[in-house]
Amino acid sequence: MPVDASLLPNLKNIATRLRIESIRATTAAGSGHPTTCQSAADLMAALFFAEMRFDPGNPQHPLADRLVMSKGHAAPLLYAMWAEAGFIPRERLTDLRLLTSDLEGHPTPRLPFVDVATGSLGQGLAAGVGTALNARLIGSDYRTYVLMGDGETAEGSVWEAASVAHLYKLDALCAIVDINALGQSRATELEHDMEAHRTRWRAFGWHAVVIDGHDMAEVLAAYAEARATKGTPTVILARTLKGKGVSFTEGKPNWHGKPLKPEEATRAYAELEAQFEKEAGPTPSIPAPPAAPAASRPGPMPAPTYELGESIATREAFGTAITKLASVDPRVVALDADVKNSTFSERFEAAHPDRFFQFFIAEQVMVGAAMGLAARGAVPFPSTFAAFLTRASDFIRMAAISGVNIKLAGSHAGVSIGEDGPSQMALEDFAMATAQPNFTVLYPADAVSTEKLIAEMAAHHGPAYMRTTRPKTPVIYDNAESFPIGGLKVLRSSAADTATVVGAGVTLFEALKAHDVLKAEGISIRVIDLYSIQPIDAAALIAAGRETGRLITVEDHYVAGGIGDAVARAVAPAGLTVTRLAVTEIPRSGKPDELVEKYGISATSIVEAVR
Amino acid sequence: MPVDASLLPNLKNIATRLRIESIRATTAAGSGHPTTCQSAADLMAALFFAEMRFDPGNPQHPLADRLVMSKGHAAPLLYAMWAEAGFIPRERLTDLRLLTSDLEGHPTPRLPFVDVATGSLGQGLAAGVGTALNARLIGSDYRTYVLMGDGETAEGSVWEAASVAHLYKLDALCAIVDINALGQSRATELEHDMEAHRTRWRAFGWHAVVIDGHDMAEVLAAYAEARATKGTPTVILARTLKGKGVSFTEGKPNWHGKPLKPEEATRAYAELEAQFEKEAGPTPSIPAPPAAPAASRPGPMPAPTYELGESIATREAFGTAITKLASVDPRVVALDADVKNSTFSERFEAAHPDRFFQFFIAEQVMVGAAMGLAARGAVPFPSTFAAFLTRASDFIRMAAISGVNIKLAGSHAGVSIGEDGPSQMALEDFAMATAQPNFTVLYPADAVSTEKLIAEMAAHHGPAYMRTTRPKTPVIYDNAESFPIGGLKVLRSSAADTATVVGAGVTLFEALKAHDVLKAEGISIRVIDLYSIQPIDAAALIAAGRETGRLITVEDHYVAGGIGDAVARAVAPAGLTVTRLAVTEIPRSGKPDELVEKYGISATSIVEAVR
Repeated sequence: MPVDASLLPNLKNIATRLRIESIRATTAAGSGHPTTCQSAADLMAALFFAEMRFDPGNPQHPLADRLVMSKGHAAPLLYAMWAEAGFIPRERLTDLRLLTSDLEGHPTPRLPFVDVATGSLGQGLAAGVGTALNARLIGSDYRTYVLMGDGETAEGSVWEAASVAHLYKLDALCAIVDINALGQSRATELEHDMEAHRTRWRAFGWHAVVIDGHDMAEVLAAYAEARATKGTPTVILARTLKGKGVSFTEGKPNWHGKPLKPEEATRAYAELEAQFEKEAGPTPSIPAPPAAPAASRPGPMPAPTYELGESIATREAFGTAITKLASVDPRVVALDADVKNSTFSERFEAAHPDRFFQFFIAEQVMVGAAMGLAARGAVPFPSTFAAFLTRASDFIRMAAISGVNIKLAGSHAGVSIGEDGPSQMALEDFAMATAQPNFTVLYPADAVSTEKLIAEMAAHHGPAYMRTTRPKTPVIYDNAESFPIGGLKVLRSSAADTATVVGAGVTLFEALKAHDVLKAEGISIRVIDLYSIQPIDAAALIAAGRETGRLITVEDHYVAGGIGDAVARAVAPAGLTVTRLAVTEIPRSGKPDELVEKYGISATSIVEAVR
Repeated sequence: MPVDASLLPNLKNIATRLRIESIRATTAAGSGHPTTCQSAADLMAALFFAEMRFDPGNPQHPLADRLVMSKGHAAPLLYAMWAEAGFIPRERLTDLRLLTSDLEGHPTPRLPFVDVATGSLGQGLAAGVGTALNARLIGSDYRTYVLMGDGETAEGSVWEAASVAHLYKLDALCAIVDINALGQSRATELEHDMEAHRTRWRAFGWHAVVIDGHDMAEVLAAYAEARATKGTPTVILARTLKGKGVSFTEGKPNWHGKPLKPEEATRAYAELEAQFEKEAGPTPSIPAPPAAPAASRPGPMPAPTYELGESIATREAFGTAITKLASVDPRVVALDADVKNSTFSERFEAAHPDRFFQFFIAEQVMVGAAMGLAARGAVPFPSTFAAFLTRASDFIRMAAISGVNIKLAGSHAGVSIGEDGPSQMALEDFAMATAQPNFTVLYPADAVSTEKLIAEMAAHHGPAYMRTTRPKTPVIYDNAESFPIGGLKVLRSSAADTATVVGAGVTLFEALKAHDVLKAEGISIRVIDLYSIQPIDAAALIAAGRETGRLITVEDHYVAGGIGDAVARAVAPAGLTVTRLAVTEIPRSGKPDELVEKYGISATSIVEAVR
């Protein structure tokens, strides 16, 4: 592709300034990854100042092109780019990594030009799939660029994302691999074997362009070629040198994650300044995105229409609820990993096929794409078996750091799934989700609360997780009941209660059974439906504990990190302790009722614990 | 490759019997995946009865060929194979999925012919990399076969494993992809595009053979070709039909995970029985593996040689300890994900290069391969930053279900890593590890306890996790001190103690500082080093709580699922509660000391909590 040669001197000078600022910031901080920035500086100078369409004063413009810095340790380069564009005062760049600065060691959305936090390698391309899908959803031609290191292409999540991006023909997505051939501790697996890289990407259906990542004309031409390529995404495979531009770091090992000492930095500046082109030519102008459309506003969700006593699995109610929600909220999308007929997200697909995305058996890219979608304003509901959400645990961790508005749902949790056995039983999903302090964690027991909590999840801004259940349960709530996040329901209560049993999901019904058995013996217990596990209604739990004298939790989850621990944390300040009924060993296959009995979370165990 | 045609009729009949038994078992169970078994029956009949070398009476023979059933939902097929081989009484096959039977819904190592539990798709090839590496370690020519479904090749972990298997030239590894083109809820992404499959595997360096998976001669020839292929692993890409052999299931959608009804099964048996070859010819004989060598016995590990007060990060002590351990225990191997210079596993590599495996930035295959190595008798220590072990969370879940002897180590945990920011800080690793009820979870505070606990980890059979620390800490223990798993150390104690502060790792030193500050004010506190978080010394914690009146935990971890919760679970039966000092929000970059202070886990916060 022909390029505008008049731009080259200025872009080269920008790249040199980016190198200088990256070194300056990391040397000031005393830590960081300058040589990682140096290898990508030419690629980023050309992208940001001669290719991307954005508003330097408004990084979150909804129709602006996106850049995901998947190699998050190149954060100083990203910050230098935004300083060059005018958004960050240049003198603030040396605040890098200070507690008082949002210029963190790896990028986070505390900065308005960061869509998702990066720094756990191999995640950025999945997020880029999400931002590219969002462009299609909102009918925009904005483009998404993802800068990766070559080392991170060892992560399987990259190939999950590559496969899906090709499947969805995301030609507005462009990956750039900064192939500097040096990892943290040694040479990368493929080193500078550019053909090996090209073969892999082509095998996954991508248009692949191999270039010298330090030849500005080649870089510009590659971006133009990517923009002109239709029907599949493009990857630019750029041969680069780590530490480029400084004689004693260029292509040298053992510089990863090391700032230059001040005297080394001084030598580096001198070398780099000597590389400035005297005749810089015209300053490139950054094209502005089109005017932003008005934000869409969701309508109210109609009330559920279940009948008391009706028998419906909460996973089925989930499928119905997200389908209804999407009818009143155009931002809502659903994502599946080939279990839509088990999670009932197939109902969503049938009603809203254009807002349903199939990721096949690839949970990491499903969650990562949801992060990208959420970062651009969609309200994504990725769902699969709760056990398999652990596959995306590191993505969920990064979603928490990003604070993105992602709505995870996991079905088929606990031993109550029965015969399929432990590999299919989520028994650590609450441990995973509640560990993240900004995650909302919900567990409805019936269809009405499921539907109401889906509406609450969508109305709440921030990451959330809902667990649903495989077996059917009876509808116990009136359609008019409300379920605020952070609340609970007291289902059985009397002045004579001698214990409070806290259940949720399937175990709530065991608690209700236990209540009836004990009542027949003249023993009264209070029964609580803890549908909101995080945040948790500490005051109500403390009150119940004080009034009844004892708190017993019962849950279809391992004992560590589950509902018992959540309740115990909530009531500890009042000096109350909790008796925990939970799964305490690796379970096995069997019938659901047998397993609930065997692992000590049935009505029988509750009755024994109360007695 | 030429094949012995005389074997074909008998192998076809075996395949037909495997189909019949798979249907019979799942129909008896009323759940399961018969059609998944039917597609792979020919592939498995040929593999098990005309290719693999094993002892049907001793599935764990150390030199026998291995089979990993990565598509774990084909468990009934695997069980039928072992019945056909004589290990399982045929009449027991209909005990499938019963609570009283080890024939679980998905295979687990409760059965002696299962190396690792499967059922979370995309994990088996990584385990196969491990068993193949083990063959090389012990100098055996045993081969490893991994049966996968086509749907699971969407999992990125498959491509992590593919890349590493090629890198290590594992020509004793053979993957078999049963390409029946039907996933759970719909057609697979690539359907029957055999060339697309071949292109991907070839791009990752594998020898790829495309066959008709129902043509027994082609199947036999493919195994022979795989055996003859040197220098890289082979994948057999077998075009198959789900539900093969029964007219109303063959190639039909909507049969995934559905047993045949009894009347359907009757029709199926009639159809299948009509397919038996009348002249079956010779019965194939299963070749026996060579005589097993004597098991190697580890020698005693020499005592550490640290000096009290010496300043050493526990991550460094970890590197030293595993290196020493490997010198006395030939079973010990180390696995890295390109951070060996941060975790100090580079010391192991320098001393024992033949027992050190580099997986680059691919944590899933690192942990999966460790599972395979452990299943065959090695004692693997995979290590990386603790934050990035969450990438392998689902593998760790399956390691727990497998009960394998894997020794995970995670460094750079908590806010005390400082400037790199939250993406690099593990703050949920204890939540992940302690959730698994059979995991041992350790967190040493100094170099001596690190080394002693590494020896304890190796001596203990079962999955274990050790967290190590980035900053240096002083040696506080004598080299002769012992650190049994499940113990703790009381470091400060007096009859006047008014509170017990439980620390671990970095926070132990904050607790010791707080002790000195309070002592100067005339306030006495007890200080405990909780180096073993699971199992936990409940009796000692209860005693300390009772004697001092208060328990305060302080940890560099999120509040949910961490040390505070573990202590609270331990002391709740005694009616004791715990005050938890932990990280309660998403942290940011800053200096280690600043962050420890800001997030409320410093000596200052402890002093305030005690006062």
